[in-house]
Amino acid sequence: MYKEPFGVKLDFETGIIENAKKLVRKLSDMKGYFLDEEAWKELVEKEDPVVYEVYAIEQEEKEGDLNFATTVLYPGKVGKEFFFTKGHYHAKADRAEIYFALKGKGGMLLQTPEGDAKFIEMEPGTIVYVPPYWAHRTVNTGNEPFIFLAIYPADAGHDYGTIKEKGFSKIVVEEDGKVVVKDNPKWKE
Amino acid sequence: MYKEPFGVKLDFETGIIENAKKLVRKLSDMKGYFLDEEAWKELVEKEDPVVYEVYAIEQEEKEGDLNFATTVLYPGKVGKEFFFTKGHYHAKADRAEIYFALKGKGGMLLQTPEGDAKFIEMEPGTIVYVPPYWAHRTVNTGNEPFIFLAIYPADAGHDYGTIKEKGFSKIVVEEDGKVVVKDNPKWKE
Repeated sequence: MYKEPFGVKLDFETGIIENAKKLVRKLSDMKGYFLDEEAWKELVEKEDPVVYEVYAIEQEEKEGDLNFATTVLYPGKVGKEFFFTKGHYHAKADRAEIYFALKGKGGMLLQTPEGDAKFIEMEPGTIVYVPPYWAHRTVNTGNEPFIFLAIYPADAGHDYGTIKEKGFSKIVVEEDGKVVVKDNPKWKE
Repeated sequence: MYKEPFGVKLDFETGIIENAKKLVRKLSDMKGYFLDEEAWKELVEKEDPVVYEVYAIEQEEKEGDLNFATTVLYPGKVGKEFFFTKGHYHAKADRAEIYFALKGKGGMLLQTPEGDAKFIEMEPGTIVYVPPYWAHRTVNTGNEPFIFLAIYPADAGHDYGTIKEKGFSKIVVEEDGKVVVKDNPKWKE
């Protein structure tokens, strides 16, 4: 039997995809991810803001099929570090991914398994090609929600554990009002 | 060795992706595709308009990798039939595809190998899921360029021959100023 084709609406202003599964990540869900643990704790106790929301339409994990999702990554900082998504490798490490920025301002931090990192700036209209094997995390460096669409193989899967444990070798911080990408002092090689 | 990540700009107004490979399909490249062969011949001899342009960034044909491309499908008709793309199955028939409409008005005609067809309307913000096995063709039913982004597995490949030979079981025409999807009298089952 064939699967049914369908069309759904993505709202360019809000990033919401109709009929999608919604996932919410609050700051309390991201313990250990930010450099400044004191600032993290304080902000969680004060308001525990939503860091990002994901609207995903996913298929069964099958080779050749495709999933898509929007992310609404809110503006904010923990200490000097801009809000970001958890970031992940793919469980099937050789799966690529395509990101398409729709609103706001930010960038993508990518990293090889050996820790070579690269930061790619994103603004509305930027398409980022995430090659096989690279971990990827998006960062909101602006003052409004950073919204983007991602398309990824249905069998890619997510490996969040490696990033949770080791982090990225680079961090994206605000220094003197500028966006600066610098070495992560807590990076565990 | 790892492939390099990159970001490129997609221009929302023109649909052009920087550094992409450009492909142009003129009406003369589409002999035999439209129902009204006399109208096709007349229009080819008169001006041979560009029907669509594709801006593609493609990888090697490798499982798990992804390609992306925009299409600028111009407004126009051959007889009563709206301009469309050639349409294709994937050479690896079980590869899916995701389309994202950015500008203009149109739709997608999809078809199973047995000829069961479906038409999905598209306007800016519509995401269409093309499941494995379905042939797909886009149609411009508006008065301005219809622009959309497509993401597809790098190993999907294209089977244009089946559609060229057999066509789609449905056609999309203008009747009394309305968009009508009806049976294709030339459809070869």
